[in-house]
Parts: sequence; structure tokens; C-alpha cells
Amino acid sequence: MTASFSSFKSGPAGGITTLQKDHHPANYGVLLFPGFQALDAFGPLDALNFLSRRTRINCSVIAPTLDPVSTIDPAAPQTIGQHVVPTHSLSHLPEDLEVLLVPGGRGTRQIQPTECIVECLRQTYPRLRYLLTVCTGSSLAARAGILDGKKATSNALEFEWVMDCGKKVDWIPSARWVTDGNIWTSSGVSAGIDMMYAFIAKVYGPKVAEDIARQSEYVRNLDPTNDPFAHSI
Amino acid sequence: MTASFSSFKSGPAGGITTLQKDHHPANYGVLLFPGFQALDAFGPLDALNFLSRRTRINCSVIAPTLDPVSTIDPAAPQTIGQHVVPTHSLSHLPEDLEVLLVPGGRGTRQIQPTECIVECLRQTYPRLRYLLTVCTGSSLAARAGILDGKKATSNALEFEWVMDCGKKVDWIPSARWVTDGNIWTSSGVSAGIDMMYAFIAKVYGPKVAEDIARQSEYVRNLDPTNDPFAHSI
Repeated sequence: MTASFSSFKSGPAGGITTLQKDHHPANYGVLLFPGFQALDAFGPLDALNFLSRRTRINCSVIAPTLDPVSTIDPAAPQTIGQHVVPTHSLSHLPEDLEVLLVPGGRGTRQIQPTECIVECLRQTYPRLRYLLTVCTGSSLAARAGILDGKKATSNALEFEWVMDCGKKVDWIPSARWVTDGNIWTSSGVSAGIDMMYAFIAKVYGPKVAEDIARQSEYVRNLDPTNDPFAHSI
Repeated sequence: MTASFSSFKSGPAGGITTLQKDHHPANYGVLLFPGFQALDAFGPLDALNFLSRRTRINCSVIAPTLDPVSTIDPAAPQTIGQHVVPTHSLSHLPEDLEVLLVPGGRGTRQIQPTECIVECLRQTYPRLRYLLTVCTGSSLAARAGILDGKKATSNALEFEWVMDCGKKVDWIPSARWVTDGNIWTSSGVSAGIDMMYAFIAKVYGPKVAEDIARQSEYVRNLDPTNDPFAHSI
């Protein structure tokens, strides 16, 4: 673990408290694709951005190519969206990736274009310490076979379609988020925020998660089994 | 209003219901600057992205220049962040802007670099139908003098600093969000999501806001006076 810290740019250390750095993951990444849901990514990422004020972490933005990646659903070009700049392409992944966040979004429905994302997950998962998916991001992990035999969840409104993406997955229809080993999957869109706070609480301690939620003025759902949207399936 | 629709790209109309288009604002923009808080922008924007599946709206991403704009606090370069691609620079604003969203973030503390944002707000506000600020975004509107004599709010943890940015503003320390005329200001970070849902409910009807919140699996705070973080000032 110590070696992975050597790749960080050294910067002003004011306000940075390195918390038990030998035990915490420090190299995060988010895997984007055209038509990802903005909040699936930026809800959890914003909590990580806050976290980086306390402890040194790195976060790559990975996409099929280095071209800016759009939240606009490729099948609905009349909708609005935003474009995010990747730091890494799939052909040059960061070597020391430890935690990978995978958002969902309408783009997950593009079976052929997302094949490269699915293949990346298949190849990358064995060397990750944690995989976190939000919303229909779990459909991509399911297609990669990573979730076979594991408990996982997804967006209530897309649940039947997601289940079809992984017939061997133990899909949990009523859950804000689910953990199974080192895989965390959340329910729809906003649920990813609750999952990320729970992840931060587990890895960095409850106080860190509480402090960040207060800075963000976010009212957390602390109970993974409390799913206010499960019955809208 | 009808004329403003002529600038939209025509695309497949499947699933689009244009709701009383002569009365609704259609031309949105978000005003970004280095060190904006990701969730301040992408929380509300994600709701607008969903809205655009129902009704044709446009949303410009405005920044000082056309260079990608980073969420990283310029004063804390060791922190992590993401880069967003603008569609418009301050020197070439969209002509038909009706609703402007202004996030906060640590970058608002950079008094000199944000002066161009403040000047843009000063010049643009008179022709807007609505101005919405999130978190310390209200400090920028305050510096522009737009909030003088009006009720407004901001992030609880930054409240005293924000008050100093606008001595003639009627600052409301306990509010999830505040409306005064055509100006909406929210409390910290996540509060911007509740404010945007309330805005959508007012402009497009409560059913539209409810439907989008269900798609996003977001548990709304419906009461602008219910501020769970007010007392941490």
C-alpha cells in the first residue's frame, strides 16, 4: 500500500490528515460512458472530493477514450446533459486502481457501445479492493459475470431489465444498497450517495462520514434495508 | 417565448411532451468557476436532465473561458476533482438565457478570480426570469448586489463569511431554501437538490417533480423551513 502513495503529487499539506494510510485504499476511479447518469457519478464523487480534504486520495476519471464523455443518452439526443473530461482511457487504465465506482444511466442500455466497459470490468475486478455500482451500473457488472452468485441491487424502475442482465445474480429488490464481499451495489441514482457515505464510514470511520455529510448538509439514509422506492417496481 | 424554441436542435420527439411551452422557461444555464462544488451543480442539473426527457429545455454550461472547468479548489491543489466542459464563455453568453443556476464551493473564496462571475451576474440578472444559487453561490450574487434588500440563505458552516459578502441582504440562517421574488437561494450543497425539485414543482407542476424524484429515488425535503443543519452555525 505504501508504494501506491508515491505516485501522488506532493502539494501543500495544510489541513490534510493521513488516516492510517497503510490500510486505506487511496486510488479511486470512476468509469464513465456516454449516457451515464450525472448524479450516479457526482453524488458519490462529491463525497470523495470532500474526503480528499482530509486524507490523500487520488481519483481517475476513466472513459472509453480521452474525449469528453456526455451524460446525454445516445438514444435521446434531444435531451440535455453535460460533458466530463476523462483522465484515462480504457486502453491506458491507471495501474494502481483500488476502488472503482460505476454509475448507471440510460447509456447502459446501449449493449454494443458498453461492451468495452463490461470487458474492462471483467478484466479489472480481480485486482480491485472494492467495486461500487450505482443504479443500473450493476447491469454492467452483471454482464461482466462479476455478480454471479452474489447479492446485488439496482434501480427499482429498471429492476426487471437489470435482472435480465444477470440471471445468476441474487437480486435484492428492496434495498437502498447491498454489500456482498467487496462489492457494493446501490439502488437508483440518489441511493449512490447513501452507499458512498456508508462506504466512507466503513473504511475511514463513522465520524469521517458524519463530518462530510454535515459539510454537504446531506440527510443520510443509514439503513441499507430502508428502501422507500422498492415497492414502485 | 415561442421564438426561443426555434434555437433547439430538432431531434426525435419520442417521449417528449412539451408542457405549455409558451409559459415555461426553456433556456437554462449553469455558471461554473474553478473550485465549484460538484454536487451544488450536478444535484440540480441531474433533475433538469431528467426534466428534459419530458419537455424540451436547453442548458448552457457557462464558465470564464471555454477551457474545462475544475471542481478542485485552487487553494488546495492536493485535493481531487473533476473537469467539466463549458458550452459558453463569459464573453459569449447565450442570448436567450432565462434561468441561471449558480453553485457554490471553495472557489467562491477566490475573490479576484470570481470577480468576472460576479460582474456577469450583475449584468445578466436583469434579463433573467429566475436566478437560483446553491450553498455559497449566494455569496457571488450578494457581491453583485443582486440580493440587497432580499431574503436569502447559504451553507450553515460558511454563513458568517457569506453574510460579510452582502451586508444589505436579509440573511435567513435557518432555511433549506429561500425564495424572494424570482431569486431562489439554497442552504449547503445537497440542499440545492431540494430547491430544484421545489422549483420544478412550481414551474412544471408538483406531479412532474414527484415523478422525477421517484425516477431518481430521491427522498425530498418538501418544507423550505425544515433545515436540519441550521444549528451547526
